[in-house]
Amino acid sequence: MSEIEKWIERLAELAVWGANVQPGQIVLVTSCVGKEDLTRLVAREAYLRGAKYVDVLYWDVWLKRARVELAAEDTLDFVPPWLAQRLYWLSDEHGARITLTGPQSLEALRDVDPARAGRDLLPRQKEGSEVLNRMTTNWCLVPAPTRDWAASVYPNLPEADAYRALWEAVAHVCRLDADDPHTAWETRAGELRSNAERLTDRRFDSLRLHGPGTDLRIGLLPSAGWIGGSFLETVDGIRHHPNIPSEEIFTTPDPDRVDGYVSATMPLSYAGSLIEGIRIEFSGGRAVRIDADEGADALRAIAAKDEGASRLGEIALVDDGGRIGRLGTVFFDTLLDENAASHIALGNGYEHPVESPEDRARINRSGVHMDFMIGSAELAVDGITPAGDVAPVLRKNVWQL
Amino acid sequence: MSEIEKWIERLAELAVWGANVQPGQIVLVTSCVGKEDLTRLVAREAYLRGAKYVDVLYWDVWLKRARVELAAEDTLDFVPPWLAQRLYWLSDEHGARITLTGPQSLEALRDVDPARAGRDLLPRQKEGSEVLNRMTTNWCLVPAPTRDWAASVYPNLPEADAYRALWEAVAHVCRLDADDPHTAWETRAGELRSNAERLTDRRFDSLRLHGPGTDLRIGLLPSAGWIGGSFLETVDGIRHHPNIPSEEIFTTPDPDRVDGYVSATMPLSYAGSLIEGIRIEFSGGRAVRIDADEGADALRAIAAKDEGASRLGEIALVDDGGRIGRLGTVFFDTLLDENAASHIALGNGYEHPVESPEDRARINRSGVHMDFMIGSAELAVDGITPAGDVAPVLRKNVWQL
Repeated sequence: MSEIEKWIERLAELAVWGANVQPGQIVLVTSCVGKEDLTRLVAREAYLRGAKYVDVLYWDVWLKRARVELAAEDTLDFVPPWLAQRLYWLSDEHGARITLTGPQSLEALRDVDPARAGRDLLPRQKEGSEVLNRMTTNWCLVPAPTRDWAASVYPNLPEADAYRALWEAVAHVCRLDADDPHTAWETRAGELRSNAERLTDRRFDSLRLHGPGTDLRIGLLPSAGWIGGSFLETVDGIRHHPNIPSEEIFTTPDPDRVDGYVSATMPLSYAGSLIEGIRIEFSGGRAVRIDADEGADALRAIAAKDEGASRLGEIALVDDGGRIGRLGTVFFDTLLDENAASHIALGNGYEHPVESPEDRARINRSGVHMDFMIGSAELAVDGITPAGDVAPVLRKNVWQL
Repeated sequence: MSEIEKWIERLAELAVWGANVQPGQIVLVTSCVGKEDLTRLVAREAYLRGAKYVDVLYWDVWLKRARVELAAEDTLDFVPPWLAQRLYWLSDEHGARITLTGPQSLEALRDVDPARAGRDLLPRQKEGSEVLNRMTTNWCLVPAPTRDWAASVYPNLPEADAYRALWEAVAHVCRLDADDPHTAWETRAGELRSNAERLTDRRFDSLRLHGPGTDLRIGLLPSAGWIGGSFLETVDGIRHHPNIPSEEIFTTPDPDRVDGYVSATMPLSYAGSLIEGIRIEFSGGRAVRIDADEGADALRAIAAKDEGASRLGEIALVDDGGRIGRLGTVFFDTLLDENAASHIALGNGYEHPVESPEDRARINRSGVHMDFMIGSAELAVDGITPAGDVAPVLRKNVWQL
């Protein structure tokens, strides 16, 4: 068995453990062409745990390319209705979800019109955030290399070496090299939870993030806490790790109190489109000006998807205690990159960090949830108390609390 | 561009022409891992014709293997409900369907329990025959080689040569080498239509098929005609070629008047399971004894799916005028093999060959439709008139009418 094969086996086991698949559950798997090996082992692991049926969709970004390039303008927002029916069915069944993240290929949409590409966000579905907030499903995201993706991360390596290098990085950041990856993640989760609790206890009214190209104030909801340690519990009490790896602590901000400007510190691949050099100006919570060096029209199309797509649904802080940021690699996979650097997300907000019904009613709602990375060693994060006092929160990615 | 790439391009064009995809239509594509190249070009061709959305499912028989090997006994018949919703949605939308036939791999299910394998017939769905009979969708099946399938058809060739050989055979039998494959198929369709009309005009009461291991009498419905020439018309008048290639003429028999015994002349791969050396005894229309050299339990599980699964839904005659039978190759793909030799099908009957409402009410109903080949140069086919006179129909695969 090759080293890659061993990693695939361990990651499959970890994904099914992360989702905490229960006997008798339906398991939806979101995969794509090029990830067959991991997908098949995930299915085996899920059946070994007693899954009733493992329902895999293999997406293919080259089919999206054909659509974005050739389909009529007025059809590009169309989503087949069975995709929503499938997701609501899973929610009604209290099933599990496993998503294999990372772009199939960064080349497929490279030379298409970004404004058209930004209209087709599949396999992301607008019902996804709603079902997530119902807490009826236990789920886990893990990164899954493809050869084409690896070639974009390591463009100077021969294809086989790039693929090996990406698997090596994934194995490292997913802690597959630990004697017991489960324990490694439980331990790391404990650290993140304690960081989150310290920040929650300060009950800041808002945060100020400032550094090169960024000076942004983000209002916080009074009853919102910070969540870290990457585990959730379903309404049935099934504890699960939604993200492996997870190195962030996050909360749901006040969608009406975001002001200033922000510059992304990393490019990102969103639903197949590459978006680079994002610069956004906010006023009264709304993104009033959206620019990017590449893919600006895709970004504008995403932010125009609905009313909430131009407001924030998440702010997350990442310190230097994780394994991803230290690699200094841009992965073009939000799951990896968002756990390397502090980030914010346009679109839907999570309910579980927010306690009071009044605050929950104020959470931003959208069919979109698009994270982008704004953190770096140069980004200073301050907390501002309700009285207006300022306290340092992060400096050079180190906690100041 | 390699020769295989040229064939893929021509076959994609032919499939979309065969289905006669209309501007604004939804197009469902049934494909599997290993057929990405043809799938993507089919999508491009469909969008070029104005398709609204090309909805592709890539199946993976290795996922079925994990299920058949590991899932609990009482879950094996489960089918996720969204698959039926998707098909009914297509029917309501009057969309198009393109299916890429041929097994992804004959190895995946080789050593699993055939009785368990026979319970999971996906991607075949029981609603498929019902939607077909509604005539709301225009559709086309074409064969699509994979490397693993090719290795099973040509076990003595190196992998690359086997793949090329299978593409060469597919190109030949799909008449991709014709100056204009459309005209080639229209011409061949005309010949088959004329053969079908000659046989319909005889208004036989039943057929007798006899040869080595076979002596079977099949009753015909009085108002059933023979159909050939591989085209259908939807309720909207969209003319399409459901099968490319098509070399058969067929009808829907009387499900209560089938008596005798029959032996298959070819192995077959059905929903991933290999079934070889089929021998079935019929009495009063029902298969009362089912045997096979390999996969007998899979075959019995299929015939036990519902009441109609053990009665006949189709009888088809194939003469030696086509291109497939002459190759003498067993393809393990029903679309190819059923157009090489006369065959019968257990399960659902087609409505369109049957005229009178009384006869339509008698057609066999089932969620299954499983063709198997019984034709050979040694099989004699006779027609028996209502008065009991016997007339030769096929001898050594040559028409006697």
